[in-house]
Amino acid sequence: MLNPPPVAIVMGSQSDWPTMRHAADTLEALKVEYEARIVSAHRTPARLVAFAGSARDEGFKVVIAGAGGAAHLPGMIAAMTPLPVLGVPVESRALSGQDSLLSIVQMPGGIPVGTLAIGKPGAINAALLAAAILAISDDDLAERLDAFRRAQTEAVPQFPADDE
Amino acid sequence: MLNPPPVAIVMGSQSDWPTMRHAADTLEALKVEYEARIVSAHRTPARLVAFAGSARDEGFKVVIAGAGGAAHLPGMIAAMTPLPVLGVPVESRALSGQDSLLSIVQMPGGIPVGTLAIGKPGAINAALLAAAILAISDDDLAERLDAFRRAQTEAVPQFPADDE
Amino acid sequence: MLNPPPVAIVMGSQSDWPTMRHAADTLEALKVEYEARIVSAHRTPARLVAFAGSARDEGFKVVIAGAGGAAHLPGMIAAMTPLPVLGVPVESRALSGQDSLLSIVQMPGGIPVGTLAIGKPGAINAALLAAAILAISDDDLAERLDAFRRAQTEAVPQFPADDE
Amino acid sequence: MLNPPPVAIVMGSQSDWPTMRHAADTLEALKVEYEARIVSAHRTPARLVAFAGSARDEGFKVVIAGAGGAAHLPGMIAAMTPLPVLGVPVESRALSGQDSLLSIVQMPGGIPVGTLAIGKPGAINAALLAAAILAISDDDLAERLDAFRRAQTEAVPQFPADDE
Amino acid sequence: MLNPPPVAIVMGSQSDWPTMRHAADTLEALKVEYEARIVSAHRTPARLVAFAGSARDEGFKVVIAGAGGAAHLPGMIAAMTPLPVLGVPVESRALSGQDSLLSIVQMPGGIPVGTLAIGKPGAINAALLAAAILAISDDDLAERLDAFRRAQTEAVPQFPADDE
Amino acid sequence: MLNPPPVAIVMGSQSDWPTMRHAADTLEALKVEYEARIVSAHRTPARLVAFAGSARDEGFKVVIAGAGGAAHLPGMIAAMTPLPVLGVPVESRALSGQDSLLSIVQMPGGIPVGTLAIGKPGAINAALLAAAILAISDDDLAERLDAFRRAQTEAVPQFPADDE
Amino acid sequence: MLNPPPVAIVMGSQSDWPTMRHAADTLEALKVEYEARIVSAHRTPARLVAFAGSARDEGFKVVIAGAGGAAHLPGMIAAMTPLPVLGVPVESRALSGQDSLLSIVQMPGGIPVGTLAIGKPGAINAALLAAAILAISDDDLAERLDAFRRAQTEAVPQFPADDE
Amino acid sequence: MLNPPPVAIVMGSQSDWPTMRHAADTLEALKVEYEARIVSAHRTPARLVAFAGSARDEGFKVVIAGAGGAAHLPGMIAAMTPLPVLGVPVESRALSGQDSLLSIVQMPGGIPVGTLAIGKPGAINAALLAAAILAISDDDLAERLDAFRRAQTEAVPQFPADDE
Repeated sequence: MLNPPPVAIVMGSQSDWPTMRHAADTLEALKVEYEARIVSAHRTPARLVAFAGSARDEGFKVVIAGAGGAAHLPGMIAAMTPLPVLGVPVESRALSGQDSLLSIVQMPGGIPVGTLAIGKPGAINAALLAAAILAISDDDLAERLDAFRRAQTEAVPQFPADDE
Repeated sequence: MLNPPPVAIVMGSQSDWPTMRHAADTLEALKVEYEARIVSAHRTPARLVAFAGSARDEGFKVVIAGAGGAAHLPGMIAAMTPLPVLGVPVESRALSGQDSLLSIVQMPGGIPVGTLAIGKPGAINAALLAAAILAISDDDLAERLDAFRRAQTEAVPQFPADDE
Repeated sequence: MLNPPPVAIVMGSQSDWPTMRHAADTLEALKVEYEARIVSAHRTPARLVAFAGSARDEGFKVVIAGAGGAAHLPGMIAAMTPLPVLGVPVESRALSGQDSLLSIVQMPGGIPVGTLAIGKPGAINAALLAAAILAISDDDLAERLDAFRRAQTEAVPQFPADDE
Repeated sequence: MLNPPPVAIVMGSQSDWPTMRHAADTLEALKVEYEARIVSAHRTPARLVAFAGSARDEGFKVVIAGAGGAAHLPGMIAAMTPLPVLGVPVESRALSGQDSLLSIVQMPGGIPVGTLAIGKPGAINAALLAAAILAISDDDLAERLDAFRRAQTEAVPQFPADDE
Repeated sequence: MLNPPPVAIVMGSQSDWPTMRHAADTLEALKVEYEARIVSAHRTPARLVAFAGSARDEGFKVVIAGAGGAAHLPGMIAAMTPLPVLGVPVESRALSGQDSLLSIVQMPGGIPVGTLAIGKPGAINAALLAAAILAISDDDLAERLDAFRRAQTEAVPQFPADDE
Repeated sequence: MLNPPPVAIVMGSQSDWPTMRHAADTLEALKVEYEARIVSAHRTPARLVAFAGSARDEGFKVVIAGAGGAAHLPGMIAAMTPLPVLGVPVESRALSGQDSLLSIVQMPGGIPVGTLAIGKPGAINAALLAAAILAISDDDLAERLDAFRRAQTEAVPQFPADDE
Repeated sequence: MLNPPPVAIVMGSQSDWPTMRHAADTLEALKVEYEARIVSAHRTPARLVAFAGSARDEGFKVVIAGAGGAAHLPGMIAAMTPLPVLGVPVESRALSGQDSLLSIVQMPGGIPVGTLAIGKPGAINAALLAAAILAISDDDLAERLDAFRRAQTEAVPQFPADDE
Repeated sequence: MLNPPPVAIVMGSQSDWPTMRHAADTLEALKVEYEARIVSAHRTPARLVAFAGSARDEGFKVVIAGAGGAAHLPGMIAAMTPLPVLGVPVESRALSGQDSLLSIVQMPGGIPVGTLAIGKPGAINAALLAAAILAISDDDLAERLDAFRRAQTEAVPQFPADDE
């Protein structure tokens, strides 16, 4: 790939996509390229090793990883790549993502995962944080991100509307 | 190794040993051989892959894995070996092992970890469950385990003693 | 019984069957024979004593027990049989299985229950762990389990599909 | 026994006695006779069956049962005796009695355990509730209980004292 | 009242009745008379004082009290009557009854509330426990309760049925 | 504004209005004037600073602030105005408002937020508490509030009705 | 009393005073008079009725109520007085005040308790919120509160100091 | 400042420094310059606005923010700067940092905070994640980070040592 995308969005299973596509949509709104892949830490550990071991050499700059339940994907990627890893706890059935959150955020000292909120807000924010990270050395992206935030601010109405 | 031990006890860090040695002690009481190793899913992922990938070929029959916090070790071993994996949630500082427990027990369908209680009781019980598993095809061990349980039953006093 | 099944699946009530039948289905996929029974620790304690007390003599090798709420069935079976007992916390109405999980996993040192995840994933995994336990001394089953896991790995798509 | 005590205090292990003796002390203050026994649901299931199965015939009127962690003792006694069973969740190490509480209180419809607070307050209150139950048909005890409560009320100071 | 009912079922609001009527139904099945009233600790404190203060003199023997959220009704009744009080935590909207449970069960030493499970199972069991309490001095009721329990035991099927 | 309203109802987003309008409705029932505004601590921090910095000078007496998830609005308003601030934890999707509650109530010593219940009851009660605060120096309002409470008390039926 | 204090600080027991005296100290720092009393909702319900029923007539303007565990005091006072009631969840032994918090904050719509943080910060903040409430119609107090807040702001150092 | 540091470490109070200095120590080990400041969202909101509003212009590239309880600092900084903000939940007294964690991580979609673990491990990891972010465009730092991680891996012993 001549111009590899800076962001990898990985998720543990197809069932995480309805959540994680909000990360993809947000990156698209910011014109940040990405690649979305399914990598199951538990069912495809070899794929995990291959992906995480080569992510920097492939040209990725930031990895967004989403998973639910005993969510090991973000932490295990972080264990195998020096790239910044952002974790999205996907809402789980029985425990509403509390298990996902603790499995992702409570990493031991030494291997960080920057964890976002449970579910859709977390997926959106993983994309925004990835963009903010890339914007440190990309003035054009910094401007697009500023514009995104300004628009977001301006979209907040002054008064509540009864018809919601 | 001419007579490789049937049980591997692995743990994420030296700080897990005060908990996990109760598994070792219990196996010794049952005359079940074991090998204890430190394998950090996060700080030594290559060691994890090497251990889990060869555990069956090395001759292990059952793996006991203990870890705390975002405890990924038991689940990641289970992802890479067909052997039965028993998980011990080590008590964590801030959340008292609730994070460890959920990170270990809430595995997705497809990759099981038989999870025991948080902390010392879980370490003891991981050893007892490993012994019960091995005893299915080892009548001598089954007898030793029966004796252990009988002794345990007999050691329960009939009445509470005030001097505790 | 000339050829008694190696696995007993017991559950506290008929209402646990929609969860526990995933254990049955998984065992069938692995060609592991089983018998499913309803044994209520609370409403049929005599049946519990009879079942657990004779489970080994009946020829069972592994017991899978599922229950919800104040879920005492797995632990009480484990108290009365030396066989390995695997516990499945069934999702409860008010507390989503958090009560079931703690009631099953937090066994005191001395009597182990290998606990799986809450609900359907736990039922599937109880079957897989039972199979892994039996596969220690059954090479044919070990091969079937390996094949099951390979198929599971191969079934994970590389990329998320939008049409979910 | 010519004059069997009306209350049985049972507990899962000697380590529960520092909690449960508050139940004993409170019964003594009310001049209600009791017998304290150790009955481990997990380590002495035969003793459990024997105790619970004969508790009514032995002459007990109310059973107070305390246990910690995966606390099955109160519920299993309730499964095997028609007597009123009161449960005391003993404070557990890792989860501070949250596991004990849920294991005792979340009984399925059909087998009740009247559950008190975690730890010492629960033990005291189990005794008081047992006394209130017995006082329904024992006017002398009702008067002693009234006096106990009046004294308790009168012992509450009007103003806080700085020297605590 | 010539023949006052032995059991009072009180609840904090009409919205608790769908839960609490399971207590009423169960008492009816056991031919135990009861009276159901709405007493809101918060909205009708004078009614609370009047009810609790005269409950014993009115002839009640046992009080079943259900409430949700910051559920103060059972504990406040217990503060004002020497009768045994059984508490039913009604399932609350946001916290699924966890607030109700803790508000009811965590009473300080001195004033007991025998607490049952959250929701419908708790309502059923409050009735069964009330019956067990009354049966101590009512042999006919003891026989009806025994019959109820036998029928309950016999109603448990031996095997799960697929058509649920 | 000649006659500025005494109560400001602010909320983090339009999606909080279905909850917060119960505060508005309750204030209307008590004939307490208010103004409802959307102020997002996160998306419109300048609006937050402007609002909170001038709230007292604008003539507001009490601020009711509702927000969900990592709910910073009530606390940040309290940091920037000496007026009494009442916080309403709006029910969040994944965690049912537990995050909202803790984010609002657990303020450090020095900056208080009077926190009400999660969701609709909290919104109603924020209005009632605001009214009680204003009633300290407004005898007419005190009378209207007394009447409101009397009516509330009288509206509680004596007996549960089956047809709910 | 010619000049009755505007604030009542009530608490469930002497053991709450080490927490609640922080409310007293803070009121003293602001020169707001108060009276501290012990009122146990459970052990002295008559005192509760007497206190809450006459609090407004006695001349109190605001009530601060602290309690722990199944903390009914704030809500029951709020049920019996139209005055603003502020609740302080006192840290409990087993559950660290989570039970106290939920018992106080989760009041049903109709009877508000403005709840502060668990423990000492909550006691301080109850006093500050009481002062802010009184300051609405007391310009001198408003100035003292402004000064308190300015001093608090100025006391925050710019940089962390290693010697803590 | 000729060579402004790329990382700001801010915390809500001096009491957070024993936790946050682990972030400082880790940055020093990686030769990443930083500046540590105390910025209380609640007690010094003007300082918050000044800091966050000018952080990018001052030359900071990444902000690490630690706070406890109702921890609003990280989210409010993120609301006022486009820079990447990493949040450290400081362990709180009553709730052990569960309140801190939820207050930081559960940000609404639109304003991200990359959240690390509760307490010391989170502080270390915030520094490591900041370094990884800066390393994207700083090859020397990338090499130092790689060396740090290699050394960390090599420091893990193969076997547990009894003398801990």
